[in-house]
Amino acid sequence: MALHVPDLVGIFVFGITGALVGVRKRLDVFGILVLALVTGLGGGFIRDVLIGDTPPAALQDWRYLVVPVIAGLITFFLHPGIGRVERLVNIFDAAGLALFCVTGAQKAIEHGLSPLSAALLGTISGIGGGVIRDVLSGRVPVVLRSEIYATPAFLGAGIVVVAAALEYDATWVPIVAAVTCFGIRLLAIRRGWNAPLPRNP
Amino acid sequence: MALHVPDLVGIFVFGITGALVGVRKRLDVFGILVLALVTGLGGGFIRDVLIGDTPPAALQDWRYLVVPVIAGLITFFLHPGIGRVERLVNIFDAAGLALFCVTGAQKAIEHGLSPLSAALLGTISGIGGGVIRDVLSGRVPVVLRSEIYATPAFLGAGIVVVAAALEYDATWVPIVAAVTCFGIRLLAIRRGWNAPLPRNP
Amino acid sequence: MALHVPDLVGIFVFGITGALVGVRKRLDVFGILVLALVTGLGGGFIRDVLIGDTPPAALQDWRYLVVPVIAGLITFFLHPGIGRVERLVNIFDAAGLALFCVTGAQKAIEHGLSPLSAALLGTISGIGGGVIRDVLSGRVPVVLRSEIYATPAFLGAGIVVVAAALEYDATWVPIVAAVTCFGIRLLAIRRGWNAPLPRNP
Repeated sequence: MALHVPDLVGIFVFGITGALVGVRKRLDVFGILVLALVTGLGGGFIRDVLIGDTPPAALQDWRYLVVPVIAGLITFFLHPGIGRVERLVNIFDAAGLALFCVTGAQKAIEHGLSPLSAALLGTISGIGGGVIRDVLSGRVPVVLRSEIYATPAFLGAGIVVVAAALEYDATWVPIVAAVTCFGIRLLAIRRGWNAPLPRNP
Repeated sequence: MALHVPDLVGIFVFGITGALVGVRKRLDVFGILVLALVTGLGGGFIRDVLIGDTPPAALQDWRYLVVPVIAGLITFFLHPGIGRVERLVNIFDAAGLALFCVTGAQKAIEHGLSPLSAALLGTISGIGGGVIRDVLSGRVPVVLRSEIYATPAFLGAGIVVVAAALEYDATWVPIVAAVTCFGIRLLAIRRGWNAPLPRNP
Repeated sequence: MALHVPDLVGIFVFGITGALVGVRKRLDVFGILVLALVTGLGGGFIRDVLIGDTPPAALQDWRYLVVPVIAGLITFFLHPGIGRVERLVNIFDAAGLALFCVTGAQKAIEHGLSPLSAALLGTISGIGGGVIRDVLSGRVPVVLRSEIYATPAFLGAGIVVVAAALEYDATWVPIVAAVTCFGIRLLAIRRGWNAPLPRNP
């Protein structure tokens, strides 16, 4: 089976975010590896289980499993000071979000889901790993925090879906989609973009 | 594919509860929509994944996906004062519980599960969305709080299952089952019915 | 269908841990039964869903469902003083971990997963129920706490996997695997074994 490189990179960067959160929570090396594994693999597991493509791709090729372990070990030995961890979590998390929303939407289209469903599944793939990481480690899930988060994932997945619906499959489509998601997410963090709050009657 | 109206209504009312919790937690409009989506769709996703009927029904028809978004937007614009939110959450949650325990049990029976398994799967369908909502938003899951909650869902699912085992499939069976679940749940909230606590040795 | 006795015992002891946590949290009898059910069945559900063997075994035979209910009721009526609950949770949890990591790895091998994937799936089966229990009841998941936890599960699953790869299937292999996991986990608790912490730069 051919490796899916964007998925591998996504697993790697999400694995780093899980390990960094573990460092921040002062977990030991095994707790850090567990968080790296569930964060790296979680979104893809949810995606594949919902599509019905089981066992998930990551369980069918050992190379997917080694990647988050390496991410966790690198982070354990080379992590920066605790004070700078949160910013790195956000950046790597944005990269994982961008990669998984695109690959999730692509896989959903290949399995015949409708455009709207494929966009939603891409979004779920993107946010799934981070939600599991945050719930397990007792943080407010990033998707519910103040800056814009699910929207760039939905936009990235949407670009893939619209291009597929138009039967336009140039190589740059997924790249533009991922860059769009990544860019908007980073800008949202930098500038503190917030969506409207409910009125307070 | 024919739409399943009780499921749609269940998704709608659970979507409202998710959005209301989001309002209460002062999330922005996108956080509120995410909570509406996961709460509305979560129970059905768990049900369909456990039955092995993937992709879940809600991913095979875009109309299921639009419903929680509408529920979230309506709640965002028309929600009451924060003080009255919790009571509304309870009422809509009871309605969703009643609808999903019945449709979950019916679907489990159609897929050939045994009566006890079908009753359990109906209960899981009923409580799943609320559990995801509460875990994500950092609340004690409603199913573990003081008033009776899982029991009316199990009763509602049980009525469906017993009727099916007796090969009695009148139209009023699911209606009576849902009303029973809804009524007992509301009474439990109103009257503060509690089940026995463990003794304190 | 033949009952799988180690699974039944694993469901029973995990059910007891769920019920004990419920007692500790002062839940009522139904909340305790819900925690017993999700803790007892959760790991197996995750295992079967990831393998693609749905509906999960526990939904295909009512006897699997009765076991955690019995565990919950016994615990409700016979639980010790609150002060001693936590130690019992740890011991029963170690037993469930040992049983599920072995049966999970065996089932993964039967379904053709590669050795590394089978060892990971065994580990996930072992830690799944406890993670669900802890997330629902608002505890720090045991797998992220200080003592060594996922490692003995991975070791136990690994013994099964290596023996299978060598086509050596003596009866004592799973027994040695489970005892290894159980023993290391108990020693880790007793002696307060900790893995290395991240350096604090």
